[in-house]
Amino acid sequence: MTPHPLTALSEDEFKIARDVVTKLHASDFSLFFRAIFLQEPKKAELVPFLQAEHAGSITDATPRPPRRARLQYDVIKPGKLPEYTQSVVDLKSRKEVERTVAEPHCQTGYIPDEFGAFQDACVASQLFKDAMAEYSLPENFTVCIDPWPYGGPDEGENIPRYMQGLVFARDASKNNLDSNHYGYPIPIIPVMDFTTKEIVRVDRLATGGADDGLDPHPPSSKPKPLFTNAKSSAAEYVPELLDIPLRADLKPINITQPEGASFKIHGDNLIEWQKWRFRLGFTPREGAVLHDLCYDGRPVLYRLSYSELTVPYGDPRPPFQRKQAFDLGDGGFGRAANNLELGCDCLGAIHYLDAVLADTAGNPTLAKAVACLHEQDNGIGWKHTNFRTNRAVVTRLREFVVQCIVTLANYEYVFAYKLDTAGGITLETRATGIMSVVAMDEGKTESPYGAVVAPGVLAQNHQHIFAVRIDPAIDSYADGDTRVVVEESVPAPMDAATNPYGNYYEIRKRVVDKASWIDAEPRLNRVIKFENKTKKNAMSGRNVGFKLTPSASQLLLADEESQVSKRAKFARHHVWVTGYRDDEFWAAGEFTNQSTEEVGGVWDMVARGDWFGDGNETSRNGSTEGEGRKCSPVVWSVFGLTHNPRVEDWPVMPVEIHHMNIRPADFFTANPALDMPGSKNKASVIVPCCGQQNGAGGTNGDWESNQGVQKAALTHLQGPGPDIPAEEAGAHVEMRK
Amino acid sequence: MTPHPLTALSEDEFKIARDVVTKLHASDFSLFFRAIFLQEPKKAELVPFLQAEHAGSITDATPRPPRRARLQYDVIKPGKLPEYTQSVVDLKSRKEVERTVAEPHCQTGYIPDEFGAFQDACVASQLFKDAMAEYSLPENFTVCIDPWPYGGPDEGENIPRYMQGLVFARDASKNNLDSNHYGYPIPIIPVMDFTTKEIVRVDRLATGGADDGLDPHPPSSKPKPLFTNAKSSAAEYVPELLDIPLRADLKPINITQPEGASFKIHGDNLIEWQKWRFRLGFTPREGAVLHDLCYDGRPVLYRLSYSELTVPYGDPRPPFQRKQAFDLGDGGFGRAANNLELGCDCLGAIHYLDAVLADTAGNPTLAKAVACLHEQDNGIGWKHTNFRTNRAVVTRLREFVVQCIVTLANYEYVFAYKLDTAGGITLETRATGIMSVVAMDEGKTESPYGAVVAPGVLAQNHQHIFAVRIDPAIDSYADGDTRVVVEESVPAPMDAATNPYGNYYEIRKRVVDKASWIDAEPRLNRVIKFENKTKKNAMSGRNVGFKLTPSASQLLLADEESQVSKRAKFARHHVWVTGYRDDEFWAAGEFTNQSTEEVGGVWDMVARGDWFGDGNETSRNGSTEGEGRKCSPVVWSVFGLTHNPRVEDWPVMPVEIHHMNIRPADFFTANPALDMPGSKNKASVIVPCCGQQNGAGGTNGDWESNQGVQKAALTHLQGPGPDIPAEEAGAHVEMRK
Repeated sequence: MTPHPLTALSEDEFKIARDVVTKLHASDFSLFFRAIFLQEPKKAELVPFLQAEHAGSITDATPRPPRRARLQYDVIKPGKLPEYTQSVVDLKSRKEVERTVAEPHCQTGYIPDEFGAFQDACVASQLFKDAMAEYSLPENFTVCIDPWPYGGPDEGENIPRYMQGLVFARDASKNNLDSNHYGYPIPIIPVMDFTTKEIVRVDRLATGGADDGLDPHPPSSKPKPLFTNAKSSAAEYVPELLDIPLRADLKPINITQPEGASFKIHGDNLIEWQKWRFRLGFTPREGAVLHDLCYDGRPVLYRLSYSELTVPYGDPRPPFQRKQAFDLGDGGFGRAANNLELGCDCLGAIHYLDAVLADTAGNPTLAKAVACLHEQDNGIGWKHTNFRTNRAVVTRLREFVVQCIVTLANYEYVFAYKLDTAGGITLETRATGIMSVVAMDEGKTESPYGAVVAPGVLAQNHQHIFAVRIDPAIDSYADGDTRVVVEESVPAPMDAATNPYGNYYEIRKRVVDKASWIDAEPRLNRVIKFENKTKKNAMSGRNVGFKLTPSASQLLLADEESQVSKRAKFARHHVWVTGYRDDEFWAAGEFTNQSTEEVGGVWDMVARGDWFGDGNETSRNGSTEGEGRKCSPVVWSVFGLTHNPRVEDWPVMPVEIHHMNIRPADFFTANPALDMPGSKNKASVIVPCCGQQNGAGGTNGDWESNQGVQKAALTHLQGPGPDIPAEEAGAHVEMRK
Repeated sequence: MTPHPLTALSEDEFKIARDVVTKLHASDFSLFFRAIFLQEPKKAELVPFLQAEHAGSITDATPRPPRRARLQYDVIKPGKLPEYTQSVVDLKSRKEVERTVAEPHCQTGYIPDEFGAFQDACVASQLFKDAMAEYSLPENFTVCIDPWPYGGPDEGENIPRYMQGLVFARDASKNNLDSNHYGYPIPIIPVMDFTTKEIVRVDRLATGGADDGLDPHPPSSKPKPLFTNAKSSAAEYVPELLDIPLRADLKPINITQPEGASFKIHGDNLIEWQKWRFRLGFTPREGAVLHDLCYDGRPVLYRLSYSELTVPYGDPRPPFQRKQAFDLGDGGFGRAANNLELGCDCLGAIHYLDAVLADTAGNPTLAKAVACLHEQDNGIGWKHTNFRTNRAVVTRLREFVVQCIVTLANYEYVFAYKLDTAGGITLETRATGIMSVVAMDEGKTESPYGAVVAPGVLAQNHQHIFAVRIDPAIDSYADGDTRVVVEESVPAPMDAATNPYGNYYEIRKRVVDKASWIDAEPRLNRVIKFENKTKKNAMSGRNVGFKLTPSASQLLLADEESQVSKRAKFARHHVWVTGYRDDEFWAAGEFTNQSTEEVGGVWDMVARGDWFGDGNETSRNGSTEGEGRKCSPVVWSVFGLTHNPRVEDWPVMPVEIHHMNIRPADFFTANPALDMPGSKNKASVIVPCCGQQNGAGGTNGDWESNQGVQKAALTHLQGPGPDIPAEEAGAHVEMRK
């Protein structure tokens, strides 16, 4: 069986690709593999295939895009810096068809296998020991270090691959490896040269309060005792170490589907649910990706993915400006995906997706259950009660959820793509896990840089700014058929001729005709529409489309002249519209690790001056010269969370939830959920008042099942009287023919 | 048993109050009762009782606020206009203790009993018949009229109580009273003088498209045929009239609680769930109200309620400027509450609240199941995976929901108060139902005033703007203990001394010291905090508090000089902070029906110049003179939805969901959900790929239960190495004493 062009590499394909690459390099070079995954087909090659697939006309003769693998690896040559290399291998011809070697200043993200070296380097380092000797720990504490990306180098700092570490102590007297070390931060940051595996510097950290300035305390003549006031339970979250009892009165909620799930998981990761259909991809950097998303056979999105997430910290005391992670570019959601467990990460009838990731030798390794798929009820979907007859019709809103959870050292994100029965697409992002904390002088609580969440523990103010990449294909995959439109609702002044009573407001639309950015503007109810350029809605006459309502969340706060801001220019605006290029997935550019500036990200994509005209060169009004070309538009949605910690976020943070909505806008000729059955759920039961038994004469006794029809919905209301016959009302009557 | 001071009136109390009032009026006057309900105690009298209650020290000797009823009724004197009268009756002494008679220009809201008269008046009206005679309807159509509030009168229009009607036809050939008449709008609006029950005017409506101006077409010499192109199924939503089959592939989702619900419904509407505790009220105007909301015995809110909702339409063609409903002031959420049904309006183990409303004779009548109470799962509550040990701890977010659904003629709202296990409070508002539509010339689709959702049917652009009233009492009911603080996250310029790398941002706080309004400002991440003035968080040293993040939703678009805007000044800003007064619950004032301007609403409350100082008169800086006084603050949160219709909103609209969040902010000394058990749900099952059977060798076979502890959460990752003993790391060690 030939796999679908979007199917992930098989283990065999994985090995073929690895072997092709291995043979291409001299035997005295060693290869350190970082990732091997499907090289997605070029859009121009895939679209004809998808069109044939949707038309049901695939045969053996249908042309297929070549099946290819992308391999990312370091080539380690004796006595030289490792060369980060990417090869694309054609799997049929077993030939390398493309190779790029990164420039030495470009650092790719870390893979977990690189973390192990850090602690060894610290143990071997006199610099590190000298720094640690400035402190005294309570007995039975051990030291553990969280490796972090180095962040942006200082100006003029010309460095190879670096890594920094946040240093903590763990109370080993509890004899539990899950005792939380984040409760015991030690105020130093060792910095490792990854190429030599040596600690090159140990930064001392400021630990003062409101009026203590930006500099660390000078070392005292004798070791400073740490954690003298820390309550031993303060930071624990594993149940066996809590000093409070778990709640005993939370009764289980079971979610069951006695007739099975409504979704179908086919081979080649094709998923069908309630008129939605898509292919589920999974990449090391992005985690879950939705391809070829269609509703009732009509294309909606060509591809939907998380693209980047930057987390800058707002503490000005050096070197905290280097606490700025790019969680996709420096790490990778796919690599950091949790192996999910039944009954814990989602409830009900669940399908789990496994993925194959590369180990450092290029072997395929199974990553089990990295995404969970299930459907869930989200309350009422639509309801109307006819107040004349008191008949209610009510249906539920059902959702299909693809969820991944990633762990990035201390922190967790829960990502969910949700499709619903009303044609809506929601990206739900939940932030949880343990905040990144640093040491604070015990006894001090006031800091302008964060919240003291436990004695000696400062949780610094920070932001999380996400970018989602949306490649729309509204009711067509044909190149150039989809356009982006900005729509606003604008107040109109009172005016005798056009707005005599002042209640009018104007809806303004503007086609985005060239690559550009757009900010959210709730004062104008600004929405971003994806429209088919020619297809009209049969009812409204408007172009069929979907709309994205950008969240007006706070953008990047760092000074625009700062490196923090320059590294993440994508985080300066809420929406970017850029011209499509194959393989261009990264809002902050391909190389974020140790970057000094965003290169090849949305800022540069806009700057190159692509345009979206109808082929007529005159539509290229105002776009800059350069490599710009006529393209179909890709939309990047940026949203974020300014997280000024609360004590409630410690030691593990309750989820902070963000929703990004894409909803149909004149795509359908009626409510697409109109055909949702309104049948009554028969498993629901009454909870009476005051400890009475069910049905024991409470006021809630009698309910009748009636096939989704609820009578007596407004028994205490009276509607208007019965209808008036047309003639009695005075109207003429036209006989039907 | 003496009822709790917040318990709703019993049927006996109802009758006592009614009889007291009836006897006070001369026997030749008739009384038309609109509402009878508990007169809530004055705060100064209730607070000492609540304090004693929470201290567990209530005895027979504890002073109780007097138990009182409020009665709202028209006094109809022969030959005079009805006098809208409110009496407060003391139930113990059976005496009227307060009476107010509204000024003649003040119109209270409509009660459903008033609707019946409208159609009768039309049938009796030659004016109406003359207007109808301009049209010809297909045979077997009947005419039905939706009564609407008249809206704001024209300038100089000195009118008694009016009502307007939107006129529709219904296809009676279907022989189904639930065939949707909203699909057949007739372009006239009859206006009734409610005091004479006569139609005084019939407005003709414009039906043109984009270039047809504001005026209605002049009547033609012969009747204009309507609905000649309307597809007979276009507007149907009841399942038996749909011309499409219902979805057959949606498998049930059952939500069950085999060990019962975790909440307790006590007598006197006291509800306890997961450390939360409150009393549930229900009033004719507001629907469900939360009183005395405490967490773990600590007060959070004294009272929480929906206060107002205005729905102005943006069509400038007269008389559409008078399509502006105030759904609480002109109608009433409690009166319009649906009688909910098991298995339809919420799933799981449900308690239903009944309420007692007055009929027009002042008799208590039962309104069954006007609110449903249940708990639900809302996904992951918090999670952390230790990437050293691969151990994950994950808990769920559980919510308790109080839900009401109201029907206001064509439209529905679903209101839910949600409390959660992380100490959060969410007000969820869903808009659904049938949009208010008007006639459009068939064949035309382009209108600047709305969307053509079906042939001849224009759904006009409109807004829904809500006000929620929040009376905070943070960790104390003592007068003056709670303050309101505005907090912002503000960019800071790069500066060598304080912000050398430009990553710092400043958190600015400002105490709201006098009554004022505040707008949402996401660019500054503006949040509104409710804080206890003196109590400090033991960890952070900050004042204990909760925070409201105001939605940056679009505010009222109407020109500020327009009557539409003047009637709803509350809708001009997102947050209002006003000085507490007993019985002051209405953001747009008590009388919204036929108002020309907001009177006694938040605008006026701010203007009177209350202040929130510490008793020191100097804190009254800048507040205006007048009746202002030192008060505790009440916060009003305004949010909305600009609804420019989509075809997908027809014929019944999929829910549009808004969330308003109030979350703890340094109220607790750690995550309040830390003690949530992480036990695995055992009812969840695996859905395998490609039609395989469960457990039949899919990759998802083996899962072990482990008391909430998930092992192997990151099997494909490698964490850093084992911890370093403190001495080996170079640190000194302090022996524990």
